[in-house]
Amino acid sequence: MNTQTNRSRAPATGDVTIGPRVGGRKMYQQGTLHPDLRVPFRQVDLHPTANEPPVTLYDPSGPYTDPQATIDIARGLPGIRGPWIDRRADAEAVPYPRAVRPEDNGGAAGALLAPAFDDSRRTVLRRRPGRLVTQLEYARAGIVTAEMEYVAIRENLRREQMDAAPRDGEDFGASIPDHVTPEFVRDEIARGRAVIPANINHPELEPMIIGRNFLVKINANIGNSAVLGHVADEVDKMVWATRWGADTVMDLSTGRNIHNIRDWIVRNSPVPIGTVPLYQALEKVGGVAEDLSWEVFRDTLIEQAEQGVDYFTIHAGVRLPFVPLTARRVTGIVSRGGSIMARWCLAHHRESFLYENFPEICEIMRAYDVTFSLGDGLRPGSIADANDAAQFAELRTLGELTRVAWDHGCQVMIEGPGHVPMHKIKANMDEQLRHCGEAPFYTLGPLTTDIAPGYDHITSAIGAAMIGWFGTAMLCYVTPKEHLGLPDRNDVKTGVITYKLAAHAADLAKGHPAARLHDDAMSRARFEFRWEDQFNLGLDPETARGFHDETLPKEAHKTAHFCSMCGPKFCSMKISHDIRDAALAQNRVEEGLSPAEIEAGLAEMGARFRDQGGVIDVAMDPAPV
Amino acid sequence: MNTQTNRSRAPATGDVTIGPRVGGRKMYQQGTLHPDLRVPFRQVDLHPTANEPPVTLYDPSGPYTDPQATIDIARGLPGIRGPWIDRRADAEAVPYPRAVRPEDNGGAAGALLAPAFDDSRRTVLRRRPGRLVTQLEYARAGIVTAEMEYVAIRENLRREQMDAAPRDGEDFGASIPDHVTPEFVRDEIARGRAVIPANINHPELEPMIIGRNFLVKINANIGNSAVLGHVADEVDKMVWATRWGADTVMDLSTGRNIHNIRDWIVRNSPVPIGTVPLYQALEKVGGVAEDLSWEVFRDTLIEQAEQGVDYFTIHAGVRLPFVPLTARRVTGIVSRGGSIMARWCLAHHRESFLYENFPEICEIMRAYDVTFSLGDGLRPGSIADANDAAQFAELRTLGELTRVAWDHGCQVMIEGPGHVPMHKIKANMDEQLRHCGEAPFYTLGPLTTDIAPGYDHITSAIGAAMIGWFGTAMLCYVTPKEHLGLPDRNDVKTGVITYKLAAHAADLAKGHPAARLHDDAMSRARFEFRWEDQFNLGLDPETARGFHDETLPKEAHKTAHFCSMCGPKFCSMKISHDIRDAALAQNRVEEGLSPAEIEAGLAEMGARFRDQGGVIDVAMDPAPV
Repeated sequence: MNTQTNRSRAPATGDVTIGPRVGGRKMYQQGTLHPDLRVPFRQVDLHPTANEPPVTLYDPSGPYTDPQATIDIARGLPGIRGPWIDRRADAEAVPYPRAVRPEDNGGAAGALLAPAFDDSRRTVLRRRPGRLVTQLEYARAGIVTAEMEYVAIRENLRREQMDAAPRDGEDFGASIPDHVTPEFVRDEIARGRAVIPANINHPELEPMIIGRNFLVKINANIGNSAVLGHVADEVDKMVWATRWGADTVMDLSTGRNIHNIRDWIVRNSPVPIGTVPLYQALEKVGGVAEDLSWEVFRDTLIEQAEQGVDYFTIHAGVRLPFVPLTARRVTGIVSRGGSIMARWCLAHHRESFLYENFPEICEIMRAYDVTFSLGDGLRPGSIADANDAAQFAELRTLGELTRVAWDHGCQVMIEGPGHVPMHKIKANMDEQLRHCGEAPFYTLGPLTTDIAPGYDHITSAIGAAMIGWFGTAMLCYVTPKEHLGLPDRNDVKTGVITYKLAAHAADLAKGHPAARLHDDAMSRARFEFRWEDQFNLGLDPETARGFHDETLPKEAHKTAHFCSMCGPKFCSMKISHDIRDAALAQNRVEEGLSPAEIEAGLAEMGARFRDQGGVIDVAMDPAPV
Repeated sequence: MNTQTNRSRAPATGDVTIGPRVGGRKMYQQGTLHPDLRVPFRQVDLHPTANEPPVTLYDPSGPYTDPQATIDIARGLPGIRGPWIDRRADAEAVPYPRAVRPEDNGGAAGALLAPAFDDSRRTVLRRRPGRLVTQLEYARAGIVTAEMEYVAIRENLRREQMDAAPRDGEDFGASIPDHVTPEFVRDEIARGRAVIPANINHPELEPMIIGRNFLVKINANIGNSAVLGHVADEVDKMVWATRWGADTVMDLSTGRNIHNIRDWIVRNSPVPIGTVPLYQALEKVGGVAEDLSWEVFRDTLIEQAEQGVDYFTIHAGVRLPFVPLTARRVTGIVSRGGSIMARWCLAHHRESFLYENFPEICEIMRAYDVTFSLGDGLRPGSIADANDAAQFAELRTLGELTRVAWDHGCQVMIEGPGHVPMHKIKANMDEQLRHCGEAPFYTLGPLTTDIAPGYDHITSAIGAAMIGWFGTAMLCYVTPKEHLGLPDRNDVKTGVITYKLAAHAADLAKGHPAARLHDDAMSRARFEFRWEDQFNLGLDPETARGFHDETLPKEAHKTAHFCSMCGPKFCSMKISHDIRDAALAQNRVEEGLSPAEIEAGLAEMGARFRDQGGVIDVAMDPAPV
C-alpha cells in the first residue's frame, strides 16, 4: 500500500458503497408533532403467496441506501436536524470557532497531511447562555423534542401495521412498553435511563436512542492506527458498517491526521459518532503520557465538540488509588485510555486531572449536548481478571460521576467489559444498575473465553447476547481480528452482523414486542418454502442466497419444496404440512384431549392418509424440478 | 461434479488430511490399571522466555495427527480395543453375520454402487449369553474397564503437571471433581449420569465419555443426501472434523450407498459414530413411510450394530397422541425421524412401533453395547414453537424410556433442541434433569434467533454455550450452511471450532478445573507478547497467524512488543508492565490500603516513573522493529 498517495487524496463518493440493500425497500414515516420528520425504515415485501404484510426493519444506513438520495462525500450529508435546532433557538454561533492547528493532525504536513474537509459553509454552534440545550434538559422540562419523536417512531418499526406478537420474555425488571410514545421517550431520558447522542454540531445525524427499555443497539469501531489506515478507508468503513446495521460508530484513530479524518467521518455520518479525546490529547503532547495536562485535554474536548462528535469516552474513573489494584492482574490494564491515565497518575503521583476537573468537563459537554460514555479504563482483559477489585472500584466511581454529570444536565452512558466468563456476566449488569442509577450500560462483548483468537466475534457474541438480555443497552462489536490486527471491510461486516444477531437474540429474550415479528415471519417463510423471503428477511441476504445456490443454483430451486440438506422429497417440513392439514381438519389439536377423542379423531386422520398415499422417495439424482 | 466417477472410486489415504497439528506435539500417557492404554494428547510447548510447563490439550484426532502412525484408509485404523475386549471374554463371534443385501445400499448397482470396504479380516462380535457386556453393566458390577481408565486419564489433561487453577464457577448442582479417577468414572456410568459410546464391533475407537461432570463434548454431523455427497468426501469430512476437535461424528446419510459409506467411516474413525437407523430403514421400503415395519427396522438395527455404530438415535418418544399437538406449530415437525414416525402413526392410526417394541430394541443394543441417543423428534424448529406441549410431552416419554433402557443394562443419552430463545433455555435443562434421571443431555444448539441464515453457527453457539453451562453434556454443532445447504469442508471446520469455543466457555462457567488453565496460559502469552504462543494455544493457529500477518507479516513482528491495533508503542499492555513493576515494587498492592500507605507508596512509584521517562510515541510509519 502506498501510504502517501492514499493520505494525500481526498475521499470521493466513489470510495463508499451506495445503493439499496438487496431484498428491501427504503421508506420513510412522517412525524406528527413535528411534520418535517422523515423516519427511515427498510421494508421487506414478501412473496404474494405469503399473503402477509411487508416486514418493517430498523435501518441505520442513512441516505446511502436511498435510491432517491444524491450522495456527495465532499459536501457531506444534508443537515436534517438544522431546522429543529433553529426552531429551539437554544444555540448561538460560536463567534471565534477554534481554528485547526498543526498539532491537531499530529504535525502531519505536505504529502503526509490528509486533506481537510471543506466546511466553510458550516456554522459552529454552542448553547446560548441561560438556555436549555441537552436532550436531558428538555426532557426534564417536559418538552418533547423532534429528536424524541423521531426515535419514538423509529423504535416502533411500524408494527401497528402487523398483528401483535405475544409478550413473552424475561426482562429482569426493565419496563418495555407495548408501544413507544414520544412521552415515554421523554420520560426515559428525563430519568437518565436512556440517551439520544446528538451533538448540535452534527445536524446530519438521524437520531437514535440507547436505553434498556428500547431495542438493543450495536456500535462498530473504526479508525486508523500508527501502523495502518487511510482517510478514504475509514469513511468507507463508517458507511459500510451502518449499511449492515451499526447504530453508532466510534472513530478510535490514533495515528496522525485524526482531526481531518474525523471531519470527513462526522460530516458524512447518519449515525452518532463517538471518540476518545484522550487519544488526540496524547498526540498533542508528542505521545508522552506524563506531559498530558488539563489544558491540552480541555482544548481537545472543545475542538471535537465543535466538530460535532456525539459522545466522548472519558476515563475519569481511573483514580490514583485504584492503580495498585491492577498490579497483580494477569493482563494488567488493557484499556488504552485507562493505561495512559494510570501512567499519568503514577508519574505525577496525583489524582487524575479528569476526575478533578469533571465538573468543568460537564459544562463543556453540556454546551454542545455531547453525551458522556464514562470509560471503563480498568476493565478486565482476561477471564482471570474478570470482576476484580479494580474493575468494581472504578464502576462505583463511574456511578458517582454519573450523578455529577446529571446535575449538570448532561446525558450519560457507562462502558463495561471486556473479558468475563458466563457465570460472572450477570454480576456486571447488577453492579452497574446498583451504582449507576440505570444509566445505559454499553459493553464490549464480553468475551466468554480467551482461547479462540480469530473467532473472538463469536466468543464475545455469546457474552454480548447474554448481557444484552440482562439489560445492557448497547453492545460494542468485536471483529474476527480482535487481538490480532485492525479489521478490514470484511471483518467490519462480520462483526456488525454477528452483533446484530446477538442484539436481536437479547431483544427476543427480553420480550421486546417488535422482536418476535421478525423471527416469526422468517419461520413462516421456512415452513412455506419461500426461499427468496428467507434470504431477504435475513441479516445478510447475499450470503444466505450464495450458500443456498452453492448446491441448488437453478432459479427453479428458489421455489422448490425441498433443499439440498434432505433432498427432493425426504423433507420433514413437507411431511408436517400433511400432518397439519390432517390434524387441523379434526379440530382436535389442543393439549389434554381425552383418549376417546384421540381415538376417534386419529382414526379419520389415518384413513385420510392412506387415501393420500403420499410417497417419500429418496431419489439419488440431483433434484429435477 | 461427476457423481458416477466419485462413487465408483474407493476412498484412498490421499483423500484425507494427515499430519501433525500446527503448534502442538502428539503425545501419549500410559494406563496404570491397564498398562496397554495409550491415551493421546496434544501438547503445546511454550516459548522458553515463558518459563512455563507445556499446555496439554484434549485430542480426539486419532492417529491421523501422529507423525509416527501409518495410515491406510483401505485397511482402516488399528483395533486398539481388541485386546481389552478379548480379555473380558464377554463377547462371541456371530456365527452367521448378517450379509449385505442390495437394499442396504438402496439398490445402487454398477457404477452407482459405492465400493465395499474389505472387512474380510473382521470378526463380528455380540454379547455372550449370560455375560455382562455394556459399560453400564460393568460399572454396576463394580468393575473398572479399560475404557473407563482410558477416559479418566483423558479427562485430566495431565494437569497434575501444572499448578492447580482456582475452582471458580457455577455448576448448577453438577459434581465435577478436582481430579477424575477411574472409580469416579465407573460411579458416574453406574448412575447413568455418563456414557462411553463404544460398540464392541468398533475396536478402532479411542474411548471418550459424555456426562455433565466431565468436559463438555461436541458432535459434528456429516453424511450425503439424495442430492449430494460422495464416499471419499464423507470419510474426509470425518477425519477433518476430528482433526479440529469433534468428539463424536454422526453419519446422517440419506442417499443410496449408505451401508458402504458407513463401513468406510466406522473402520477409519477414532471417535464414536452415531447414526439414525430409521433413515436406512425408510430406504429399504422405497421411501414410503407407511410401509415401514418393526421387522425392517429391527433388521437395520442388527445390520448397523454389527458394523460397529456406537450410538443410535431412536425416535421412540414420538407417540401417536402427541402428533396432534404439533398441528398448530409455526414450523410443524422439523426432525426427519420425528416426521417419518408421525406420518407412520397417523397413516396406520397406531402407536409407534418403536415405542411398542422398545424392550426388544434394548436387548439388541445391549448385545453390542450400542448407546441410546433418544431422539427429540418433536423438537421446536422455530423460536415460536420453543418449549411447547408437544416438545415436553415427548421429553417426559424419553424419561420413561430411559428407565426401561437402564433396566436392560443399556447406556442412554437424551437429545434436545433446536430453536429456543435465551429466556427459555434453562427450562429445557431443568425439565430434562427432572424427567430423565440425569442421563446425559445432547442438544442441537439451540439457535437463539431465526433471523440470521448463513450465521446459524453463531445464533446457535450462543444457546449451546448457555445450555452447556447449565449441564448439557454434548453439543451437536451447527454450521454456517444450516437451513441453506450441506456443509462443505470449510463449513465443517467453522462449525467444529465455533462449538469447541462454546463448549469451553461452558466448562469455564461450570468451574471445570482444567478449563481455566488454558485461558490463563493464553492470557499470560498475550501480556508477555508471546505471539507464537498465542497462535499455538488458540483453537485455530493457522487462522490466527494469518490474521496477524495480514498487517504485520515480518518474522520480527512475532516477537514485537506491540501489534497493528495500537501501533508500535501506543500499547496499554506495555504501559501495564511499567505500572505492575512499579506497584509490585511497593508491595502495597492489596485492596484496602490506608490513604497514608497509598500516599507514601505512590510517591516513590511516581519518582521511579519520572526517572524511567518512558515515551509513548505515536509513530505513523509502519512499525520499525
